[in-house]
Amino acid sequence: MRSVEFAKGHGTRNDFVLLVDRDGLLDLSPADVAAICDRRSGIGADGILRAVAADRVPEWDGPGGIWFMDYRNADGSIAEMCGNGLRVFLRHLAEQGLVDDTADVPIATRAGLRTGRFLRDGRISTTMGPVTTGDPVTIALPGHAWTATSANVGNPHAVVRLGSEGELAGLDLGTAPTWTPLEAYPDGVNVEFYVQRTADRIHLRVHERGVGETPSCGTGVVAAAAVACPGGRCIVRVLGGELEVDLTGPEAVLTGPAVIVASGEYRLAEGDAA
Amino acid sequence: MRSVEFAKGHGTRNDFVLLVDRDGLLDLSPADVAAICDRRSGIGADGILRAVAADRVPEWDGPGGIWFMDYRNADGSIAEMCGNGLRVFLRHLAEQGLVDDTADVPIATRAGLRTGRFLRDGRISTTMGPVTTGDPVTIALPGHAWTATSANVGNPHAVVRLGSEGELAGLDLGTAPTWTPLEAYPDGVNVEFYVQRTADRIHLRVHERGVGETPSCGTGVVAAAAVACPGGRCIVRVLGGELEVDLTGPEAVLTGPAVIVASGEYRLAEGDAA
Repeated sequence: MRSVEFAKGHGTRNDFVLLVDRDGLLDLSPADVAAICDRRSGIGADGILRAVAADRVPEWDGPGGIWFMDYRNADGSIAEMCGNGLRVFLRHLAEQGLVDDTADVPIATRAGLRTGRFLRDGRISTTMGPVTTGDPVTIALPGHAWTATSANVGNPHAVVRLGSEGELAGLDLGTAPTWTPLEAYPDGVNVEFYVQRTADRIHLRVHERGVGETPSCGTGVVAAAAVACPGGRCIVRVLGGELEVDLTGPEAVLTGPAVIVASGEYRLAEGDAA
Repeated sequence: MRSVEFAKGHGTRNDFVLLVDRDGLLDLSPADVAAICDRRSGIGADGILRAVAADRVPEWDGPGGIWFMDYRNADGSIAEMCGNGLRVFLRHLAEQGLVDDTADVPIATRAGLRTGRFLRDGRISTTMGPVTTGDPVTIALPGHAWTATSANVGNPHAVVRLGSEGELAGLDLGTAPTWTPLEAYPDGVNVEFYVQRTADRIHLRVHERGVGETPSCGTGVVAAAAVACPGGRCIVRVLGGELEVDLTGPEAVLTGPAVIVASGEYRLAEGDAA
C-alpha cells in the first residue's frame, strides 16, 4: 500500500491538506484531489496546497530557488491563488524548516509572485496583488436588491454595504445572489456583505461562487476592505475569525492566523496518484 | 507542544477519529472531542472511537483482557454504541496488531459485549444485540404522513415503508420528521424510510435524531432490516454504501466495509486533553 505524507491546517477556518512534493513527482488527478478532500472518506478540506520547487514547474517563468504553491479546490479543479491558503502554506514550510521565517519569503503562485512575512505576534502577512474597484452593479437575493461595488482581486467580487448587524445576521445565503447587468460577471462573482463598525473595522459575510457561504475568503476580505476602507487599513471579522488588510501600498497585504493541526500519512487508494 | 496519535477511517461514509489509549490516561473533555471532530479546525469526523483496556474502565463490569470502545459523538456527548464505528474500531485494532483477526473478537461497549469477525472478503461482521419491533406509530414530514413500525436496537427507531424509488429519492429530509403519539419517543427517534427491492434487498435513507440525514446509521440499518426482512437476511443500500443484516439468530449481525484512510499526530491545543 502506498501512502503520502500530509499535514492539515486552517486559516480562519478555511482548511487545507498540505503536501510537500519538492521534485513535482506526485501527479494528482482531479479524482485524487477530490478523494483526499472528501470530508467523510478522505482527510477532508476545502482544498490541497502542494509545495513544489518552482524550478520544477513548467508553467512558472519567474525566479527560481523558491517554492511554488499548487492550489487545487476540493472538487479537483485548479485555482490561481488562495489568500488564507497561502498563510497556511507558509506556516507549514516554516515548521518543516523549508523556508527561513525570519526574512520575507517569496512564493510562486499561478497568480504571480507573492511575499509572506512571519509577524512576531504569530500571525502571517502575505501580499495579495493589486486591488481595483469599479462600476456599481445590482446584487439581489430573493425579496431584496442592493447596489454593490465591483472589485477585482485577481478574481471578481461584488461588495454590498448593509446598514445594521441585524440585516447582516438575517441574510439567507443558502441561495446564490444574482446580479445585473448579467454581462458584468460572465464567469460568476463572489459576493461580500458588510457592516461598517468603525472607520477601520467591518463585519463580513461571504458567498463564494460555486461553493456557497464560507467561513472565510481571503480575496473577499481584501475586496470588502478596499470598498470599506480605501487606501487605509481595515480589520475584517468573518465567521471564521479576524483578518487585517493593509491597502496603503501598491499591493494589498492580508494578515491573519494560520495553524497546523495534524500531520501523518494518507493511504492512496488503488488508482490514486502515481 | 503535546500531541496524540490518531487514525481516521470510515464505514459506509460514517467517519471516525481513532485513538488507542490502553491505560485510559487520556482524559478527553467534551470540548476536546468537539475540537478534534471539527471538520475545519480539527481533523473532522462524526465521532471519536477511543480504545481502552476494559480492565481500566470503571464502568465496565464484564470480562477483562479485552478492549473497551469508548464512543463519543462529534458534539462531545457520550454514546452507548455505534454499529459502523465498531467495524472501523476492529479494523484499526487488527491493523495495529492489537487483536487477532483470525478469531472472533469480543469488544466491550457501553451497550454490553459485542463480537466482531473478520470475513475473508474483507468485510467485518459485528453482533448488534437483540432487535425488537413494536407498535405502529405515525411519522410525518410537511405535507405527508405514514404509518411506521417502531423498532428498538438499543436506541429508538421508526421505520417507514415507501412504495417507490421515486418517493424515496424525493423525500426532503432537511426537516426533522415528527411523530404521534408524542409519548412514543420521549427522547426523540431515528427515522428510516425504505423501499423493498426484492425479498432480501432494500434501499434506505435515514434521519438521525439531533443530526439530520446521514449517509449511514448502523442501528437504523438493523431496524429497517428487522421490519423489512424479519427473521431473515437483508442487503441494505444506504447513501454511503451497502450493508448486510442477518436476523436469523438471537442477535442481529451487521456486516459491511471498514477502511482506515490516514494516520498521524494531532496537536492538542492549549487546554485540550491532559
